Amino acid sequence: KTIKSLHDAWSGWLVVLLVGLAAGTCAGIIDIVTKWLTDIKLGVCTFAFYLNKESCCWMSESKNSLTDNCTQWKTWSEIFGMTESNTSSTYVLNYFVYILMAILFSALAALLVKVFAPYACGSGIPEVKTILSGFIIRGYLGKWTLLIKSMTAPLAVASNLSLGKEGPLVHIAACCGNVFGHLFPKYAKNEAKKREVLSAAAAAGVSVAFGAPVGGVLFSLEEVSYYFPMKTLWRSFFCALTAAFILRSINPFGTSHLVMFYVTYNRPWFLFELIPFSLLGVLGGLYGAAFIHANLAWCRFRKTSKLGKIPILEVIAVTFITAAASYPNPYTRIDASSMIAGLFKECGHVIETNLCDYKASNKNGSAIFSSERDLPNGDIGAGLQTAVWQLVIALILKSVITVFTFGLKVPTGLFIPSMAVGAIMGRLIGIGIKQLVFTYPDCFLWKNSCHGASSCVTPGLYAMVGAAATLGGVTRMTVSLVVIMFELTGGLQYIVPLMAAAMFSKWTGDAFGHEGIYDGHIRLNGYPFLDNKEEFTHTTLATDVMRPRRGDPPLRVVTKDGMTVEDLEMLVRSTNYNGFPVITSHDSQRLVGYLYRRDLIFALENARLHNENVLSNSKVYFSLHAPPSVSSSNEPSPVRLFNIVDLSPITITDHTPMEIVVEIFSKLGIRQALVTHNGRLLGIITKKDVLRHIAQLNQQDPDSIMFN
Amino acid sequence: KTIKSLHDAWSGWLVVLLVGLAAGTCAGIIDIVTKWLTDIKLGVCTFAFYLNKESCCWMSESKNSLTDNCTQWKTWSEIFGMTESNTSSTYVLNYFVYILMAILFSALAALLVKVFAPYACGSGIPEVKTILSGFIIRGYLGKWTLLIKSMTAPLAVASNLSLGKEGPLVHIAACCGNVFGHLFPKYAKNEAKKREVLSAAAAAGVSVAFGAPVGGVLFSLEEVSYYFPMKTLWRSFFCALTAAFILRSINPFGTSHLVMFYVTYNRPWFLFELIPFSLLGVLGGLYGAAFIHANLAWCRFRKTSKLGKIPILEVIAVTFITAAASYPNPYTRIDASSMIAGLFKECGHVIETNLCDYKASNKNGSAIFSSERDLPNGDIGAGLQTAVWQLVIALILKSVITVFTFGLKVPTGLFIPSMAVGAIMGRLIGIGIKQLVFTYPDCFLWKNSCHGASSCVTPGLYAMVGAAATLGGVTRMTVSLVVIMFELTGGLQYIVPLMAAAMFSKWTGDAFGHEGIYDGHIRLNGYPFLDNKEEFTHTTLATDVMRPRRGDPPLRVVTKDGMTVEDLEMLVRSTNYNGFPVITSHDSQRLVGYLYRRDLIFALENARLHNENVLSNSKVYFSLHAPPSVSSSNEPSPVRLFNIVDLSPITITDHTPMEIVVEIFSKLGIRQALVTHNGRLLGIITKKDVLRHIAQLNQQDPDSIMFN
Repeated sequence: KTIKSLHDAWSGWLVVLLVGLAAGTCAGIIDIVTKWLTDIKLGVCTFAFYLNKESCCWMSESKNSLTDNCTQWKTWSEIFGMTESNTSSTYVLNYFVYILMAILFSALAALLVKVFAPYACGSGIPEVKTILSGFIIRGYLGKWTLLIKSMTAPLAVASNLSLGKEGPLVHIAACCGNVFGHLFPKYAKNEAKKREVLSAAAAAGVSVAFGAPVGGVLFSLEEVSYYFPMKTLWRSFFCALTAAFILRSINPFGTSHLVMFYVTYNRPWFLFELIPFSLLGVLGGLYGAAFIHANLAWCRFRKTSKLGKIPILEVIAVTFITAAASYPNPYTRIDASSMIAGLFKECGHVIETNLCDYKASNKNGSAIFSSERDLPNGDIGAGLQTAVWQLVIALILKSVITVFTFGLKVPTGLFIPSMAVGAIMGRLIGIGIKQLVFTYPDCFLWKNSCHGASSCVTPGLYAMVGAAATLGGVTRMTVSLVVIMFELTGGLQYIVPLMAAAMFSKWTGDAFGHEGIYDGHIRLNGYPFLDNKEEFTHTTLATDVMRPRRGDPPLRVVTKDGMTVEDLEMLVRSTNYNGFPVITSHDSQRLVGYLYRRDLIFALENARLHNENVLSNSKVYFSLHAPPSVSSSNEPSPVRLFNIVDLSPITITDHTPMEIVVEIFSKLGIRQALVTHNGRLLGIITKKDVLRHIAQLNQQDPDSIMFN
Repeated sequence: KTIKSLHDAWSGWLVVLLVGLAAGTCAGIIDIVTKWLTDIKLGVCTFAFYLNKESCCWMSESKNSLTDNCTQWKTWSEIFGMTESNTSSTYVLNYFVYILMAILFSALAALLVKVFAPYACGSGIPEVKTILSGFIIRGYLGKWTLLIKSMTAPLAVASNLSLGKEGPLVHIAACCGNVFGHLFPKYAKNEAKKREVLSAAAAAGVSVAFGAPVGGVLFSLEEVSYYFPMKTLWRSFFCALTAAFILRSINPFGTSHLVMFYVTYNRPWFLFELIPFSLLGVLGGLYGAAFIHANLAWCRFRKTSKLGKIPILEVIAVTFITAAASYPNPYTRIDASSMIAGLFKECGHVIETNLCDYKASNKNGSAIFSSERDLPNGDIGAGLQTAVWQLVIALILKSVITVFTFGLKVPTGLFIPSMAVGAIMGRLIGIGIKQLVFTYPDCFLWKNSCHGASSCVTPGLYAMVGAAATLGGVTRMTVSLVVIMFELTGGLQYIVPLMAAAMFSKWTGDAFGHEGIYDGHIRLNGYPFLDNKEEFTHTTLATDVMRPRRGDPPLRVVTKDGMTVEDLEMLVRSTNYNGFPVITSHDSQRLVGYLYRRDLIFALENARLHNENVLSNSKVYFSLHAPPSVSSSNEPSPVRLFNIVDLSPITITDHTPMEIVVEIFSKLGIRQALVTHNGRLLGIITKKDVLRHIAQLNQQDPDSIMFN
């Protein structure tokens, strides 16, 4: 017995430990498989096909340390025996294999999703959010969803679609939470307790997606969880940290960092840079608002047109367009994580990419600079000019194609594409500002603070701020966004720039529409989600919202005695309400309690089964004082159902302001409240009524709300 | 009008901006004054008395860069003309001035607190927590408290008492929040809105105290705030960041860091070290539990004995003992922040302090080692032996004296003393582990992971982990503790050791008593604080808690019509309830609403004042349908008071489980709920009843709870 009580006390910690372990392991495997699949589009390791390019070259002896290339890693054209690497036929072959592989991967992913687990599509965050608010979607967090989403997320990412695996990782972690929660009776039987595990799991998901345990907890708190009691904060943190620790031990990228785009800056930023950072915030907010509108419109079109009937074809078509348009551009050919990592980097002493190709100010033309003084400080070089054009094209491609990608029937995360768009935007603006400082070194804004453009403007930092801005514009995250980005850089130094961008992004975005992409999709799908972040500011009263309304038929109620079994069976058959108020009598209308439909049906069936004297005209008593049941077979036996009445329903008066009613619904998480006036039952308000009322006041369609 | 609505929308941001600015400025001034006052105990700057030692030496030309000493900074014995620095009379004079100054500072602080702002004493966190839970303590966050606490906190710290200014900074920031909140009608008029500003202010307080904006927000969320809506999270973060930014601009320590004990490590830690880290956690938890018990017992003694009547004498006595015992020991002579900073440091190539005096393993006896290989790797040197003894004595002194210090009638923070105890403990254990690794290099635990003790064990890290452990044991913080410590180090690397220590500390501490020091002081002072972190697990019902109980006189109620002015005046005079339920009639007992005492008194006075026909036997109608008032002077005029009845009181049924009742009280923040049965009024439950019930179930004294 002691063991059992100890088990109960520790099961809370045990379950989050297991969830953390599972989420970390899943993320590690997904990362490794994704990397391999991404590389195999471009070539293959000749001595071991199961190695990705980096591992292949690390194991081979013919490594060229500068370019990360090696002879054992062969592109597809080399495999097929084309040795001259610059002819157009080689290019065409590689191009063809690239597109073919991409389509193969995405079609396979779409097929797996369609056949085995339809819930594995999308990012999953809107649904997890809805589930945490109390709505139940059966199977959404099941074993099959877990398995299929873990398998298809790498395929979808590797197919070069404009999507990420970060959102799906949150869904996958939530699945882990649900699966492990079922192992413990404490959590399997109690939905509210299970939701605490799911909150912790969501934190672990973000923790492994971005290597940000603190940011993960804040994301779960701010964005995903509906009700987050403080005692689960600690467990969520433990879960997130366990997951991050496991992922670090798996070390999928071989760098001891949890994400591909981890950076370490040490350059300072200057006060004048807050102007471009804020500008980036505004641009990010504008992009976010535009994206949300366009994406929701497209998703609505998909739902209502024939397009929704052919999900696999749609995936193939989008993949074809994306792959065909991506290959020619080096920034879109590689996966988005690598591109972001490249854009976040600062230019060092060695020109590694076109992005750092500045003309040397001392005009000695050497490509490698020996000391800090000799850092590229001059005009834009030819390489950088090419890079800028390529980036502009990539920006247009990414921002357009993402609209059509988010909502496809494959796992689609939105973090990476949003960050990619922002990173390109930021890098471009950073390059521009650097050029500005170089061209006008005497402008009063920066004259005193920096000496020479190279020591002053870090385009990589702009890319990072831009990524934060677009991500903020799309998701409307705030604190968690800043903390995630700050954990990515590992320094408190840039928290002010990130904060400025996030603030302007949110303000700009909110000016064009108050909801983030997740809330938008929740509304699009009609989930019954009562937003607890919005304030209800109208002056309506409960009496304006409750049913029955003026002219409606009277409320269907149950009296505590006097009704027969037949009456009740009739009531159940003729309505589909999930419960009925119980009153003392039709005269006094005083409220006794609430009777759930399923309890009533079950109790009536049971009564008929166990006592043959219960007939259709048996009286049913919902009170303690009832005549004893009869065993002689001549007269109908009374049925006592006092024990199935919920004697403590939440009641409010008809004069209660809706502001308070909304507060009661969202804080107590109830589904219905009974409305009384001077102790008499007047009507009922359900969560659906509240949601409809809010939709009406916001001039939205009140009929779009579904309810279970 | 547009301006006004814009002002209203922006006032939320404006007020947190102002609070952030004010909190940052206060913290900066306090830091600077504290440093000056602390230094002046030991000596004075000869050319400018208002400079602290560092600034004095920085400005003077005779700077000795190695020891940070300079000739312009003179100790008191030098000022008084004693040039031989090693004679005992010099020592005695310096000792005497040190004690005198300390007593002077603390007596002045105690006097200022007693005369001008009695609320300025203590840490303030328990009270801020209580205020945020809905209790009102008038003047606690007023201008005078702000002013006096800001003045006395530096004095108290400089008097070398075992206390910190970090807790008081939270109180000071909350005062700023309250003062600026009053400038905006939106916040001045709405207590709930004002509490949102206070939550943000508390975050700013911790942010400037530890240079940890994220940690500050989490501290406010986890430890201080009662109800933290997500929309205030963002504003709190903004507030915390503004405060930190301002403090960094003021740069009180001249190091661009916000706190004295900021560290940057880069040494890795090894898995086997989790064992000593967990041990530190257990020790920290034990210390915390012992401290809480001892401190609460002493505070209870102070409250009940004559000691509470002589606060200034008590302060002087404790200061004398502390100063007299502290001066001979170099670790306690300096202020606790500097000591912590010293203990957190890792040993470098140069032996700066006794703490790093290891015998060189290559036995060449040179004090300065040239390369990493030559790092002190040997046995404990004579300096370190001395240091260990001094640390042991400091540990005993600090841990004993802090028990008597926390609760004195001066501003007393608990963070720094707790961290000091933990840092000493941790450093000692770190030195021990290092010695262990040195002595038994072949133990299986560390054989594979580290080569030589110096590269393996960083005693400074142990000090930091120890500080986290004791702080966790005393305050029972969890996530915020880890995040604050992690922001102090600026690296994700040590988050696992910190987490391990915090977890073991909390588990150990909770095994010996479930409440942290703040909750303990809340209970000691009898504030009506309904803990929302604890789960209520008992199976009692509302009917067991409500009044009137069996045998009590019936509930005092108001009928909606039929009572006279005299009846009501009698009711008000004969009771001290803060309100009365309104029912339809004594027969039906159906509930109409709730009538607040202050509204009733005011309305009756008003009615008598404005209409002379309102007499003692005038009927009072609390319903819409009342006879018109009479103007002829012969008969008493009826009084209509429908509009003062609260028609939407929260009601529950007598069968509602107390679990739900506690949830309703804590989540909706209400003060009373009316209990009905079948629509009839049965009784009332107030917050005080709930608190008493919980105290009874926990076998505590239910009469200790006060209520406003």
